[in-house]
Amino acid sequence: MPRPGDFQLHATDGAARTGVLQTAHGPVPTPIFMPVGTQGSVKSLCPRDLADIGARIILGNTYHLYLRPGDELVARRGGLHAFNGWHGPILTDSGGFQVFSLAGLRKISEEGVEFQSHIDGSRHFFSPEKVVSIQRNLNSDIMMVLDECVPYGADRAYTEKSLALTTRWAARCREAYPRGSGDNLLFGIVQGGFFADLRTRSAEEICALDMDGFALGGLSVGESKDEMLQMLRHTAPLLPADKPRYLMGVGTPMDILDGIAAGVDMFDCVLPTRNARNGTMYTSQGKLNIKRADFREDDSALDPECDCYTCRTFSKAYLRHLYVARELLAYRLNTLHNLRFFLRLMEGARAAIAEGTFAAFHARHAAVFGANGSGDSGE
Amino acid sequence: MPRPGDFQLHATDGAARTGVLQTAHGPVPTPIFMPVGTQGSVKSLCPRDLADIGARIILGNTYHLYLRPGDELVARRGGLHAFNGWHGPILTDSGGFQVFSLAGLRKISEEGVEFQSHIDGSRHFFSPEKVVSIQRNLNSDIMMVLDECVPYGADRAYTEKSLALTTRWAARCREAYPRGSGDNLLFGIVQGGFFADLRTRSAEEICALDMDGFALGGLSVGESKDEMLQMLRHTAPLLPADKPRYLMGVGTPMDILDGIAAGVDMFDCVLPTRNARNGTMYTSQGKLNIKRADFREDDSALDPECDCYTCRTFSKAYLRHLYVARELLAYRLNTLHNLRFFLRLMEGARAAIAEGTFAAFHARHAAVFGANGSGDSGE
Repeated sequence: MPRPGDFQLHATDGAARTGVLQTAHGPVPTPIFMPVGTQGSVKSLCPRDLADIGARIILGNTYHLYLRPGDELVARRGGLHAFNGWHGPILTDSGGFQVFSLAGLRKISEEGVEFQSHIDGSRHFFSPEKVVSIQRNLNSDIMMVLDECVPYGADRAYTEKSLALTTRWAARCREAYPRGSGDNLLFGIVQGGFFADLRTRSAEEICALDMDGFALGGLSVGESKDEMLQMLRHTAPLLPADKPRYLMGVGTPMDILDGIAAGVDMFDCVLPTRNARNGTMYTSQGKLNIKRADFREDDSALDPECDCYTCRTFSKAYLRHLYVARELLAYRLNTLHNLRFFLRLMEGARAAIAEGTFAAFHARHAAVFGANGSGDSGE
Repeated sequence: MPRPGDFQLHATDGAARTGVLQTAHGPVPTPIFMPVGTQGSVKSLCPRDLADIGARIILGNTYHLYLRPGDELVARRGGLHAFNGWHGPILTDSGGFQVFSLAGLRKISEEGVEFQSHIDGSRHFFSPEKVVSIQRNLNSDIMMVLDECVPYGADRAYTEKSLALTTRWAARCREAYPRGSGDNLLFGIVQGGFFADLRTRSAEEICALDMDGFALGGLSVGESKDEMLQMLRHTAPLLPADKPRYLMGVGTPMDILDGIAAGVDMFDCVLPTRNARNGTMYTSQGKLNIKRADFREDDSALDPECDCYTCRTFSKAYLRHLYVARELLAYRLNTLHNLRFFLRLMEGARAAIAEGTFAAFHARHAAVFGANGSGDSGE
């Protein structure tokens, strides 16, 4: 009988790995992409849609759900799964990234971080203990520790001080939720900016804590693709092989395949969903914008290789019309397709790793999307 | 073998009737409510959603589809059904109402009406022949003749002149599309404003034309409920009993039940869809706004008597959260429910007429929604 936190590797292919992570709401095959459901809803989709496109785990944002509708309200509803009707696994972030990117008037102290709501300007305080409590209220299958996400370009002194604080906060999260006290998993986060030795130090410190998995933080904050890859390839091997590895907030299809090649198991990003709402679509032929004038009379499917409802039912001509006419249905149909593309990419990656053909799979996609991911620049 | 236009009455109960209208894309049970898909999409819903909630026929707007994406483009796609993936019956209006309510700089002549697009200000001309041609390009199952929708408060002289023009235009539509030249049905429209004798004259003139059905126009233009009902009850009996009767742009649940009681078979209105997007929901307990503060922690279904996906899956608390957080999913879940409410109302009305209990059915709903429809005032 599998228990939450069990992580079974089924195959490796170079540094790439495929396996299954057990959670309280079911198994998660890895590598996996997690659609982002910031406010308790993957924008425009219902749980039935998510099941249809083969989603296996979704993400919720602690910062947003704490502010609205409130984690205690969600707890009284029976947790996030009962509230939003998605009964598969849910991962929540710690809220740290949003506090540092979205909220106003931040004040960081040893104790935690004070901030101002982006909704109504009200003042709030997140401590390591508080974000664990919030995520327990949400009943997240995978909870993340509070960390400070160092902004891109931070100097060595700041980064060093920050990673030490992140380590102390991670230890306090674990203490606030000792192993064995529940089925919610707790993941640590490695920081260290773009200094290899600081990444090494952070990995050593965080991995010494008794966590169910480990995330790489601060690698989707504005750096170049090369810098991201360099730091990723340096750090991923420092994480324990028998625990899941999660690259937070990444990324483009090629970023994800590069991450898998470096030994990462889990990914999340708003790219497929946000781009869908902007009309930018991912297909087996590369990226395209559905607004393109030459799609006006194009009766072919958006992606002839895709099995999603959008591609099985509608032509590019109709999808273009919906988008140009600002019809609400455009957002859902585009989102269904883009997420299905990312989820199929993961299915393909898992199969390729199992067959030992991941390098060829990776190269095939690099030929379509560009090895340096430039097809996704500026997003 | 039923042919498009066949209209079989199965039962009557007072003036109320239930039957089936045959179209080229299948049978339509009456009385029926037609969800409005202005730009070729019932806002936020896909064809699968429409089938799930039991929609039997949807409406498209000729004015909008002519302007964007263009009826000739739709014809090259194989018609509106092939374009938008809804393979059930479609009714299109003639565009007249939108020209008179939405477009700019109208100029009416014997020949037709010149107008300016609300999208880009370009100038266009609708003649009776042109709107038939557009609707043939869309391949509408039910086409409407071009009419002048007389504004509420128009004087007798204007109304009299206008109804005569509407009759001449209707005759030209029939000439442009002689019976037997296709499977698209053509409905006439009775005008006459709020002058009973002019309604009588218009009904006589329009019913003398060889049409597949007859609509009552100009009864959702700002008049009081009493005025609407009075004119409806005067005019409906003047229409041939063996043809379907369509009350255009109506209305609230009680307006529709009153229409059925007066012998009307078909209805369309943006009320359930537009209200859904404004958070105003129709339930077996009456109307309610999903934003209500007391729904914050309400774990019950929106309407415990409803069988729609929204009511079977989510609580009022979650629906309120989605709406307050402006999540795209709110629009779809609310729309699914409101349309299902209207469609179930029609299912109930058909069953009640068949059983000879429509008066009780009518009274039961009047007790919930208010006999004078005041529950829907101002919409």
